[in-house]
Amino acid sequence: MTEAPTKEATRQATRIDGKAEAERLRLRIGGEAARLLALHGAAPGLAVVLVGEDPASQVYVRNKGIATRAAGLVSVEHRLPVSASQADVLALVATLNADPAIDGILVQLPLPQQISAKAVIEAIDPAKDVDGFHPVNTGRLWTDGGGLVPCTPQGCMLLLAGVRERLAGLNALVVGRSSIVGKPMAALLLAADCTVTVAHSRSRDLPALARQADILVAAVGRPAMIRGDWIRPGATVIDVGVNRIDAGQGKTRLVGDVAYDEAVPVAGAITPVPGGVGPMTIACLLRNTMIAAGRRRGWGELDL
Amino acid sequence: MTEAPTKEATRQATRIDGKAEAERLRLRIGGEAARLLALHGAAPGLAVVLVGEDPASQVYVRNKGIATRAAGLVSVEHRLPVSASQADVLALVATLNADPAIDGILVQLPLPQQISAKAVIEAIDPAKDVDGFHPVNTGRLWTDGGGLVPCTPQGCMLLLAGVRERLAGLNALVVGRSSIVGKPMAALLLAADCTVTVAHSRSRDLPALARQADILVAAVGRPAMIRGDWIRPGATVIDVGVNRIDAGQGKTRLVGDVAYDEAVPVAGAITPVPGGVGPMTIACLLRNTMIAAGRRRGWGELDL
Repeated sequence: MTEAPTKEATRQATRIDGKAEAERLRLRIGGEAARLLALHGAAPGLAVVLVGEDPASQVYVRNKGIATRAAGLVSVEHRLPVSASQADVLALVATLNADPAIDGILVQLPLPQQISAKAVIEAIDPAKDVDGFHPVNTGRLWTDGGGLVPCTPQGCMLLLAGVRERLAGLNALVVGRSSIVGKPMAALLLAADCTVTVAHSRSRDLPALARQADILVAAVGRPAMIRGDWIRPGATVIDVGVNRIDAGQGKTRLVGDVAYDEAVPVAGAITPVPGGVGPMTIACLLRNTMIAAGRRRGWGELDL
Repeated sequence: MTEAPTKEATRQATRIDGKAEAERLRLRIGGEAARLLALHGAAPGLAVVLVGEDPASQVYVRNKGIATRAAGLVSVEHRLPVSASQADVLALVATLNADPAIDGILVQLPLPQQISAKAVIEAIDPAKDVDGFHPVNTGRLWTDGGGLVPCTPQGCMLLLAGVRERLAGLNALVVGRSSIVGKPMAALLLAADCTVTVAHSRSRDLPALARQADILVAAVGRPAMIRGDWIRPGATVIDVGVNRIDAGQGKTRLVGDVAYDEAVPVAGAITPVPGGVGPMTIACLLRNTMIAAGRRRGWGELDL
């Protein structure tokens, strides 16, 4: 999954190619979906619910549909008007919970303000909660496992596994403590036997914390906040940030939370932005749909 | 809740008196229970289920009953034979879930081997799960709160609050990653804006990690494992360990995970063992029962 180090005089971090890794994962999923279809006459089904007309959400939902069908899974989209009530969304979720052809349910966030995201997330059958946001899945993540794991931290772990054979005993720093990335990432690193530190906006001396980290996961949403001289030589850096910044001449570009060019001569391996963590997220959504289908339909635990 | 520092030439940590703090909490609970009884004609009810004849469990259950009644709450005990089936226990839990007079359900662990603790815990109504072990409560702890918090880490936080006015930005180290203490403790410290590190048996250079901690929580179950010279001067040390060791001449005594005598000249404040965290646990069980009753019965959030 990685490029060979270049032979320049200056040291260069291995660039972790999330795009290629995600592509390989999607191929594995496609192969497995085809096998299951031949064996059982059914493919796993993912339902995506979009409420309203948010342009970014429309793009995300469309891309999810394309990726789902490309892997040979069944994609179902439900669109509700921006004026939909919470009861409308809950009724749709109840229908999808009861539908045996649907293995995964994803309600695209954000929701219009008259609808409580918490109420909607908690209404989804945890066995179909492919976002992994239901409290039952969060609870399983922090106890004995066996639930569905949020897609972005799951993708980060798969990228890590590609460059680090053993994680046990390594010092991992997660910068950011969101329920979607930072906290579940900490749970996964802890389950992998890392010593895990979670830092955030109230943390003191973040550079010193970072310098101790064999694995540094940045998920704060502040462009290039983490500087090259904060990074421990040889560390593996996973950059979850996706920040759009002014690139001059009326253009913009995407950058991560880590100052990439500064980090490359110091880190042992690093994910670029774009092309690092991002592509893994949809692939892991498909992975979760497969895993959910395997469990729900009695096909067993799928190895993906 | 603390004794004044002594005036000896050597520095002495404040001894955090968990027994006195627990006593004060139980008095507050008693006062509130009496107020609720006068106002609503009902007191919160706690049901404890004991399966089998384990001597230690019998002592715990008896002590919980005594403490519950002493605070003016309703205590109900259910005893099942060691031969009880999982179905028997689940049927009892279902009855207690449906009983409007019962606000809290605690199934004493460990259970006989024919019974899955996981299955039993997940059968308890999360709103009555006063141990805070149900995945829904774990999930709420790590997301937006509002669930029931496990008793021991809850007690630790109350003791911390007595000696530290502000926790935000402090470096906290939790040694031990159990689902009952270490991990929920990390969640609570993170919610209090600490920078939180979780260390465990696979961690490297634990002494160096400890030396960075403004707050050190030990929950590993190894007698006096954490030595005095591992402790940062002035740190607050919360010792959750309860280990019985040989005291010579055929006697035994209880010690914590921290070498107390070594720690006292270094730490700023420290919980003794016994008399530190231990007494808080039952008091927090009563507190959870009160909180559960307030929510379930529409009495509102109780301030305890």
